[in-house]
This record gives sequence, C-alpha cells and structure tokens, in this order.
Amino acid sequence: MTIVYLAIVCGLIAVLYGFVTSRQVLSASPGNERMQDIAAAIQEGARAYLGRQYTTIAIVGVVVAAVLFATLGTLSTIGFVIGALLSGLAGFVGMNISVRANVRTAEAARGSLQGGLTMAFRSGAVTGMLVAGLGLLAIALFFWYLTGPSGLLPNDRAIVEALTALAFGASLISIFARLGGGIFTKAADVGADLVGKVEAGIPEDDPRNPAVIADNVGDNVGDCAGMAADLFETYVVTLGVTMVSIALLIQASPAELMRLMSLPLAIGGVCIITSIIGTYMVRLGRGSIMGALYKGFWTSALLSVPAIWAITQWTLGDMNAVIGGAGFLDADRDAAFDAITTGSADAAIAGVPAATAFTGTDLFWCMMIGLAVTGLIVWITEYYTGTNYRPVKSIAKASETGHGTNVIQGLAISLEATALPTLVIVIAVIAAYKLAGIIGIAFAATAMLALAGMVVALDAYGPVTDNAGGIAEMAGLEDEVRERTDALDAVGNTTKAVTKGYAIGSAGLAALVLFGAYTTDLRTYFPDLTVDFSLSNPYVIVGLLLGALLPYLFGAFGMTAVGRAAGAVVEEVREQFRDNPGIMQGTSRPNYGRTVDLVTRAAIREMIVPSLLPVLSPIALYFIVRAVDGQASGFAALGAMLLGVIVSGLFVALSMTSGGGAWDNAKKYIEDGNHGGKGSEAHKAAVTGDTVGDPYKDTAGPAVNPMIKITNIVALLLLAALAGHG
Amino acid sequence: MTIVYLAIVCGLIAVLYGFVTSRQVLSASPGNERMQDIAAAIQEGARAYLGRQYTTIAIVGVVVAAVLFATLGTLSTIGFVIGALLSGLAGFVGMNISVRANVRTAEAARGSLQGGLTMAFRSGAVTGMLVAGLGLLAIALFFWYLTGPSGLLPNDRAIVEALTALAFGASLISIFARLGGGIFTKAADVGADLVGKVEAGIPEDDPRNPAVIADNVGDNVGDCAGMAADLFETYVVTLGVTMVSIALLIQASPAELMRLMSLPLAIGGVCIITSIIGTYMVRLGRGSIMGALYKGFWTSALLSVPAIWAITQWTLGDMNAVIGGAGFLDADRDAAFDAITTGSADAAIAGVPAATAFTGTDLFWCMMIGLAVTGLIVWITEYYTGTNYRPVKSIAKASETGHGTNVIQGLAISLEATALPTLVIVIAVIAAYKLAGIIGIAFAATAMLALAGMVVALDAYGPVTDNAGGIAEMAGLEDEVRERTDALDAVGNTTKAVTKGYAIGSAGLAALVLFGAYTTDLRTYFPDLTVDFSLSNPYVIVGLLLGALLPYLFGAFGMTAVGRAAGAVVEEVREQFRDNPGIMQGTSRPNYGRTVDLVTRAAIREMIVPSLLPVLSPIALYFIVRAVDGQASGFAALGAMLLGVIVSGLFVALSMTSGGGAWDNAKKYIEDGNHGGKGSEAHKAAVTGDTVGDPYKDTAGPAVNPMIKITNIVALLLLAALAGHG
Repeated sequence: MTIVYLAIVCGLIAVLYGFVTSRQVLSASPGNERMQDIAAAIQEGARAYLGRQYTTIAIVGVVVAAVLFATLGTLSTIGFVIGALLSGLAGFVGMNISVRANVRTAEAARGSLQGGLTMAFRSGAVTGMLVAGLGLLAIALFFWYLTGPSGLLPNDRAIVEALTALAFGASLISIFARLGGGIFTKAADVGADLVGKVEAGIPEDDPRNPAVIADNVGDNVGDCAGMAADLFETYVVTLGVTMVSIALLIQASPAELMRLMSLPLAIGGVCIITSIIGTYMVRLGRGSIMGALYKGFWTSALLSVPAIWAITQWTLGDMNAVIGGAGFLDADRDAAFDAITTGSADAAIAGVPAATAFTGTDLFWCMMIGLAVTGLIVWITEYYTGTNYRPVKSIAKASETGHGTNVIQGLAISLEATALPTLVIVIAVIAAYKLAGIIGIAFAATAMLALAGMVVALDAYGPVTDNAGGIAEMAGLEDEVRERTDALDAVGNTTKAVTKGYAIGSAGLAALVLFGAYTTDLRTYFPDLTVDFSLSNPYVIVGLLLGALLPYLFGAFGMTAVGRAAGAVVEEVREQFRDNPGIMQGTSRPNYGRTVDLVTRAAIREMIVPSLLPVLSPIALYFIVRAVDGQASGFAALGAMLLGVIVSGLFVALSMTSGGGAWDNAKKYIEDGNHGGKGSEAHKAAVTGDTVGDPYKDTAGPAVNPMIKITNIVALLLLAALAGHG
Repeated sequence: MTIVYLAIVCGLIAVLYGFVTSRQVLSASPGNERMQDIAAAIQEGARAYLGRQYTTIAIVGVVVAAVLFATLGTLSTIGFVIGALLSGLAGFVGMNISVRANVRTAEAARGSLQGGLTMAFRSGAVTGMLVAGLGLLAIALFFWYLTGPSGLLPNDRAIVEALTALAFGASLISIFARLGGGIFTKAADVGADLVGKVEAGIPEDDPRNPAVIADNVGDNVGDCAGMAADLFETYVVTLGVTMVSIALLIQASPAELMRLMSLPLAIGGVCIITSIIGTYMVRLGRGSIMGALYKGFWTSALLSVPAIWAITQWTLGDMNAVIGGAGFLDADRDAAFDAITTGSADAAIAGVPAATAFTGTDLFWCMMIGLAVTGLIVWITEYYTGTNYRPVKSIAKASETGHGTNVIQGLAISLEATALPTLVIVIAVIAAYKLAGIIGIAFAATAMLALAGMVVALDAYGPVTDNAGGIAEMAGLEDEVRERTDALDAVGNTTKAVTKGYAIGSAGLAALVLFGAYTTDLRTYFPDLTVDFSLSNPYVIVGLLLGALLPYLFGAFGMTAVGRAAGAVVEEVREQFRDNPGIMQGTSRPNYGRTVDLVTRAAIREMIVPSLLPVLSPIALYFIVRAVDGQASGFAALGAMLLGVIVSGLFVALSMTSGGGAWDNAKKYIEDGNHGGKGSEAHKAAVTGDTVGDPYKDTAGPAVNPMIKITNIVALLLLAALAGHG
C-alpha cells in the first residue's frame, strides 16, 4: 500500500505543479486592451463551447451510467463516473489555461522569442502535468479505496470490472471530446475561410468575422481540450489494463499481487517527477526551438531510466525473483517460461490460465523497450512531418505542378508513413513478449505512457502559440511578434503529429494486452465454453473484416461531418452580416458566442453517430453472430473484431495524422520562400493540400485512438454483463 | 474425364467466339485516312510497349522459372510457364483487338449510337471471352494432362503444386501488367497534360503532342491489357484454388474426387456459354446505355442459374448425397457436418484433416451466393460511382467551394464505399460456410468468377470508347460523334469500377480458401509441427500487422511512381519540341514511339520494387521469425500475414477504386452542366479530384488484387519448397 501512497503523492505533486505554474502564467501581463478584448472573445467562445458540450455529454453519460448500474452494479458505476469526470476535467483545465496563456504568449513574444517560448510551454506543461497527474490520481485513489476501505482482494472481479469501467468513462468522454473538438475546429476553420476570405473579402484573422473567433476557439477545443481528454484516456486505459492483466494472469498471494499491481502506478509516479524536471530544461540555447523542446523531452526520458530501475527494485524487492505461474517463484526461469508460453494458446482454449514467468529485470527491459518506442516514434514523426526532410520537401516540390500532384504526393507520403512505426511496434511486441509475455507488453506500454506529461506539454504548447499569432495579427502588433509566434507555431505542427503517433503507437502495443484481458475474462466467466480464435474459423475472419471496417466508416463520418458543419458556419455568418450591417462597418461587435454555439451544436450533432459506432458495433456483432451460430462463434467474432479494429485503425490513424502534418508543413515550407513562396501557384496548391490534411490530421485520424479503446472496453464490459456479474 | 473434355470444348468455343467476333470487328470500316493515321500511331505505341514489357517480364520469368525448377521440379515449372504465357497472351490479344476497334468505333459512331455501342462492346466481348476461355483451357488442359497422360491421382501432391505454380505464373505476370500498365497510363495522362496543356498551350487531344499518343496507348495498356491479365489471374487462381482445396480437404475415391474437382471447370464452361448468349442481348432499346449493357449481364446471370444446377446435377449424379468425410457418404448429413465443423480448428492443430460434409444441393446454393455477391457488387459500385446518386453528387457539390472540399468529400466517399461490399462479403462467407464449409466458400468464389467473360466484356468496352472519343477529336469528326462516344465513355467509368470491385470482392471470398489451403499444406508437409494460429499468439498479431502494411506500402510506391514517371514524360516531350521545331508547326510527325518507349521504361523500372514486395515479404517474414522464435512461430506469422494482407487490402483497394471512379464521374457530372459546368471554378476543383483519383483507381487500387494473391501463392510454394517436395 506504501507504493500506492507514493503514486498518490506524485499525482498530487503534478496537480500542485499545475497550480503553481498556472499562477505564474496568469501573473504575466495580458497585453494591451485590444489584445485583451480579442482574448476575452476567445474565452467567451470557450465558455459557450464547454457549456454546450458538457451538457450533451452529461445526458449520454447519465444514460450509460444507468445501464452500467443496472448491469454491473455500484462500484463499476462509480468507476465510470470518476473516469468520465476527470477526463472532462483534464480537457476543461487544459483549455482554460490555454485560452489565458495565448494572449500572454503574444505579449511575452513582444519582448523576446525566449519569452514567448517560456510562456507557451509553461501553459502546455500545466495541461501535461494535469493530464498525467489526474490520470494517476484517478486510478491510484480508486485502487486504494477498493483495496483499502472496501477491503477487496487486488484480483477481485469487482476491482477488475471497476477499473475497466473507469477506463470506459475516460474513453467515452475522450471520443466525444476528440471527435467533437476535431469537427468543431476544422468546421470553423474551413467555414471562416469560405465566408470571410472568399465571400466577404476580409482578411484571414479579421475580428469582424464572427467565425474567426470560433476558429481560434477551435484550436483550443480540438488541439488542447480534445487532445488532453484523449491522452488522459490513453494514460488511464494503459495503466488500468496493465493492472487488470496482472490481476487476471498472475497467480500469487494478495500481498505479492498488490506489489505487482502497484508497480504501474509507481512508474507513473516517478515519471511525473522526471517530466517535471524536464520542463525546466526547455530553454533556447544556440540551437533551434525544436532543440529547446527536445532538451526537455530527452532529460525526462533519460532520467526515467534510473528512476524506473530504482522504483521497480524498491517495489519488487528482488529483481531476479521469478514472477508468474504459482506466484513469486525461485524456480528455473527459462523452463517455467518455456513450458507456459509454448502451451499458452491451447491452455487458453482448455480453460487453464495462461500465466507467464518473468523477473523484475525482465520487466525493466520491457519498460526500456517502451521508452525506446516513444523515442523512435518522435524521430520518425519528425522525419515525416518536419520541413528538413524528403517527405515534406517532396510534397512541396509536387505543388509546383498543381493541386492534383500535391494531393497525390501527400497521399503517397501518408501511406508510406505507416511503415516505420509499424515495424517499430512489431519489433517491440516481439521483444517484450519474449521477455515477459503479455505482461511484458503491458509494461512496455505503461512506460510509454509514463512520459505522457512531457509529451502532452510539448503538444499543448502548439495551439497556444497558434492563438498567440492570431491575436498578434488581429491586435496589429509589431511584425516581429508574428514572426516569432510563427516560428514557434511551425514546430507545433510536428509536436502535434508526434502526440498522435505516440497515442496510436501505444494503442498498437496495448492491443494484444486488451485481447489477452478479453480471452482471460472469457475463460473466467464462461469456463465451459470452447471459443476458437484460430484464423481458420470463418467467424474470426468476419470479426477481423468488420473490425477493420470501423476506422474506415468512422473516418468517412468524420470527413463528411467537417464538410457539413462548415456549410452551417457559412449560413450562420451570412445571417449575422445580413441582420447587423454594423459588423462589417466595424461599429458593432459580432455575436461570437452565437457562432461558437452554432458550431458546437453542429459538431456535437455530427459526432453522435460516429461516437456510437464503436460502442454499439461490438454489441451488435456479438448478438447477431450468436443468433446465427451460437455463443462461441459470437465471442470468436467479437474477439477478432477487437484485433481487426487495431490492425486497420493503426494504419488509418498513422497515415492520416502523418500525412496531414506533412501537408501542413509543406505549405509552411513554401511560405518560407521555397518553390515561389507565398502567393505563387505552388502555394495555392499547397493550401489545397493543407485543407485536405486538416480533417485528416485533426478530426478523423486522432479520434481513431479512443475509438479502438472503446471497442475493446465495451467488449470487456459486455462479457461481464453477460456473465451477470457485479 | 468427360467433364474435363466438356470444359475444354467450352474453352475452345470461347476462343472460337473471340476469333469470329474479332473478324467481324476487323471487317468494319476503319474510317478515313486521318483516323487511320492516328490509330496507326496508337498501334505503333502499343507495339513499342508490348515489346519492352514482355522483354522485361521474360527476364524475371526465366529467373523465377529457374528457381521453381530447382526447388519444385518439372511439372510445377511447366505450370508456371503456362500460367505466365497465357496471362500474357490474354493481355496481348485484348490490347490488340482494342487498338483496332477504337478507330472502327469512332467510324461506327458517325452512323449511330447503336453502331458505336455494338462495335465497342464486341471488341470488349472478344477480350472477355478470351480471358475466360484461355483461363479455362489453361487449367482444364493442364489438369487433363496431369491426370490423363501423366497418370497422376487427382489429389497427388504434384498436381496440387503444379496447379499452384500455374496460378503463380498468372499472378506474377498480372501484377506486372496491372501495375506497369497503371503507372504507364497515368504517367502519360498527367505528363501529357502538364507539358501540353500547361506549358505548350496546345489543346488536350492534339496530335502534335508526342505524349498524347502515349496517353491513348495507356488506356489500352492499363485498362485493357492490365485488366485482362488481372482478371485472367483472378479466374485461374479462383478455379485453381477451389480444385486444390477439394484435393486437400476431401477424402474420397479417385473417381469421386475427379468428379468433384472437375465441377469448377464444368461451371466455368457452362457460364462461358451463358456469357456468350448474354453478349447478343446488349442492344439499345428505349433505355439507357447502362441499361443495354445490363441486359447482357442479367441475361448471363439468370441463364447461369439453371445451367449451374444442370451441370452440377450431371457432374455429381445425386444432388442429395453427402460429400466429405470418408467420401460420398449417405450418412446423416447434419450429424456428420456438425461433428466435423465444431472440431475443425482443434483438429487442424492436432493434425487431423478438417473435412466438411455437404451435398450437391448445398454447393448449388453456395454458387447462387456467389452470383448474388456479383450482382450486389455491381449494384453497390453503380451507387457509389454513378452520376445519379448521392456520393458522386456530393463530390460535385463540394467542388463549388474549392479544390480542398472536393478532395475532402472524395476521400470521405472513398472511405465510406468500403462498408457495403464488406458487409456483402461477410454475409456471403458465413452463409457459404454454413452450407458447405471452406469448399462452399470456394464454390461461391468460383461462381462469381464464372461470369468473368461477361464482366470483362463490360470493362474492356470502356477504353475502346475512350480512345474512339480521342480519335474523333483529333481527326476533327462531327461534334455529334464525340457526344456519342462521350456518352458511351461515361458508362465505362462505372463498368471499370465494377470490375475492380468484383475482382477484389472475389479475393475477399477466396482469402479463407487460400488460408485453408495453407493450413492443410502445413499439416501435410509438417505433420509433427504444432502451429498456433490463435489471435493470442503474438506472432499472429505481428503477421497480421505486417500483412496489413503491404497494401499501404504498395500504394505508396504506386502513387509515387506515377508522379516520378510523369516528370520523366515532361522532360522527354520538352526535348522533342526542342530538337525538332517542325513538330509544333505541324510539318513533321513527333516520335510517338520514343515517348511510349520512355514511359514504358519508366513504368517498368518503377514497378520492379513494388512487384517484388509481395513476392519477397512472405519469404523474409518466415525466415526472420524462424530465426527469432523457431519454425512454428515462423509459419504462424506467415499464415497471419496472408490474412492481414486481405483484411487491409480489401479496404485499400475498394476505397481507392470506388473513390477514383466517383471523382471521375463528379467531373463528368459538372461537365454535363451542373454546378456551373465546364470552365467554372467548380469544374477546376473537380479536375483536381479527378487527377487525384487517377492513380488511386487505375494504378495503386487495382494492383492490390494480384498483390494479395501473390502473397498467398508464394506462401504455398514456400511450404512446398521447404518440405523438399517436387
């Protein structure tokens, strides 16, 4: 229990860091009156959005909570509510600090580039540490309550179900926030451009355009709040499923299980500390802005190595004792391991628990694999989306011959960008599995997510600089301010792409762990049922195909929704211009809140069906196949769907987010004076590519990650509900 | 053996039909001298292309044949050579009739729409019947030779390997022809536009542009020769794998096996006859052009129902006798079936052959499922690519707001278009499997492919009308001629998309059959090895992910290749203009052959690496995983790769081919006077979408089909080679 307390303390430190740092941010000057006016409009929009979104989500949440209460009981419902509330809170706080830091970043950038960087990064760090801290607190406190005051054993079914329900709460809010936010931001972006630049002939960041504020709100809504909820979900699901897997797979005494299940919490705790130390290293030296951010990232990553070793050593006691099988054994490790792994699949079918034998040292190396995956994904993403490398340059070059060739090359790059991350994930899966089986893969994913605080900090910094640039432009600040914020923003494109690759990459690692939890649950709940997960079972193929379909259908909904909602924005702005001619003359202030509310309603309406897709599809598939060919086939198809959705979703998400980032930076590369620069034909073609990439990278692509999780978690909860537990 | 003779006779009838009909086509007037000049230029280009392509493929073919000879022996090498030669021949003959029919179609269209339709469709029918006829002859004659003169038993390993090698020959040529042709046609298309319209300022179909002839050659090379080789491959692989599966899975006396293995040949035979009858029903009534084509298709499909019943009855004798298990049993069908299917997966692992019990009536219904899938895919493809429905209209509407929104909506439609075909395939798989197990699915796929003659006829008609339009424009024929050929061509866009959906859909059905052949082979060759194909085996996940990666990487190569080869075309044309100023003045003839040869060389060079991808990836995966974790894991990963490539390839191919067709027809819809018509801003945006869709639908998308087959067949041959057989 000491270890759980330690994790809780680390979580509280993260919250404290967030509190102190946000006070620092807020104490800075918010600039002149004009800047404050604009910032106030963005904040007003943010309030309008949050009010509407949380009202709608609350309705869905209450319905789902009622269903959970009826099927799985009180503890799971409490878990769901905690997950949902804290996921919402992470988004809420992140967006709130972001909409206040934007104007202060603009003001700080008037002084120096370093000033702007510090301000923007600090606000990002607040979001990052709160995501990790709240995530850790949610699981650690709930786990403490369940094993302490509730007196449950660590591997009690109620704990497994409650932790799963907590993950479900986080995921459900997260898919709403990611998809809704993504539709909002891109609908406002595209709509504002169409009605402002094209129809009314006013410049891009003109405050007379009621949709321009919505566009700025969108940066916060999509890239900050949505992203924060998404990463909160990824954090909670990864740590949660690691603990659940230990409870399901390892046979040991309660005290030993308690130690092992606390380890993911302890890892999360110490890495929050290393991440906080890392944030203080973000400083411009003689290098680039990217270099300054990397200093923070690499400091955290390198400090995490000894920290993880130390905490693992402290938690497990003996790093060389064998874990698994009948507990913490001192038996011959290799023999035990071989005996278990070679027979695991047959054992799974026959109802014998598939445990795994490994040592603390093995787990440590698995976590190093997780850190290595994070580092490699950062590097690969920078290669595919940075302006210094072949991919972005090839898109910029293709822009010379027109819109069509720009899009063709961008699509080629987006397809190609899936290869290296897949190879990295495949190698990591094999290496971690050979070290410590499914639990090893789970710990690799946990170590990846342990750095979430730092990764989110790098990401959340982006929309702040983006907004700061908009405010600088609208408030008519000196040109050098805009230049500085532009320089900061360009780096933000890459860090945003990094986070998405990181989240989906961890989902790739977690897929096998989630499937392992599913098969183990199945054995526990239905010990007499023989379910054939072999590829020669046609229901497995059916499940794989239908699972693979989900990201495609989901992507289609997302892309279409952006188009439709953008159309609604155009109508709304036309109406404001018509009803209030003073807006265009600059004599009266447009009703920013109304446009924001319109986009919010459009976004929320558009996201209902796609968000229900991963919730209802697994349930529908199970019941249809069961009706056709019995329960065993139903479970086989359902299990295969869980893997189908990751096998296809990994590629859809990676291609969309990398491709979108590459298109965006190809445009920036041209704007830097290459291939004719701003205003050239190549630039027009690059703008088209950027527009195409927008819903790719900010709407459909990133929402695939929570979608995959929801499909998996719904399947786990369905099993529990069918078994009548809870 | 009587049944095999019948199939051979039907194959000969198809060839005879092709011979007679091509005489009819060639006896028509080839138009005036100017038209014949242009047609001669296209034919010259075609010769240049064929010469170069077959030379290059021959080198690869000889190397592969040598490897096969060394590892699998004489019979397999002969099979490979037959498959390769006839696949090449199908493409060669198809293209030759097509380049002669184009000018005659233009001439016939001067008389009437009906005249143009008849001429173009007849030449398409020649290609279609030769594809089906040569495919049937290849398998039937080879099977006759093996079981007759060679005296082998129908389920001798040598026959299984030789039929697999025959399919490999067809597939290898087909991926070259599809990908090479696809790169050729789109590189010429894009290149000709860039250097002609944009740089030199000459109109689209101007004969002074040396690349314009290459563009017209490309239509024949990609849409006719490449498509014919692709469908030949699909035909041969589907019928071949059905026969191989029977040999592997059914335990019966040689005489009984002979009857059952001849059934796919007999089905192919009778459906050639119904297809030939169908071709005579293609006639304009009061309905549309599409309606005229449909008359032919539905006649063939409906006549096939009684024909398939009759031939199945005749072949099997008793439609209600139980097949499978220990032969043609009269045992209780349901009991036998249940006993076998419920235990099939475990049995597969334990080394017991997984046979299936079914009746002739069951097989008949499976084939009806295959026909229904074909009909539904035709219908779904028309919905997604026809100008009368929501998808194409939504893209046209989105073009009003610019290039970006056109592409976004097109991508949304391409993602969405995967859903209905997937559902159809999934339902067909389950239904056929419940009727007759793996063999049922195989017969469903066989019935789909039995209509290949008619489907290819509808497809091959497209490029002929496209070329006819170009010739009419270049030769300055009356406007109404161009209007008529344009009307014929618009329908061609949909029929082209239909064929691609049909081919990939049949691959979806065949995937489980191919995997079944793989697992059965594995049991036979390595009876002592326990291979775990369960989804909880991490090597299965690794195989699925790497298999899923292949279509993405392949697509990236294809898209990039088009861009690069188009650049080479631009350089070449610039050089001709510079060296010979007489070209632009119209005093000297451009060197069409040189441009065609350049595009050919560029296309062939660009396709080498992507074509090697599916050949080498399975081999590399097996040996790497074997080195890491032993042979059983290697085979598990390899088997999973086979399904990963279809699970992802199905979606990549469907989305690319449907999306591309929709973009193309959205442009045509605008050109028909909607949303501002030709020359409007919406039209420019639609042209961009069309350009993006070009490599999607004509290069990367369709080549995924042979790619999937090659991966599967290479795995089967690798098993045989590893076992040291042959």
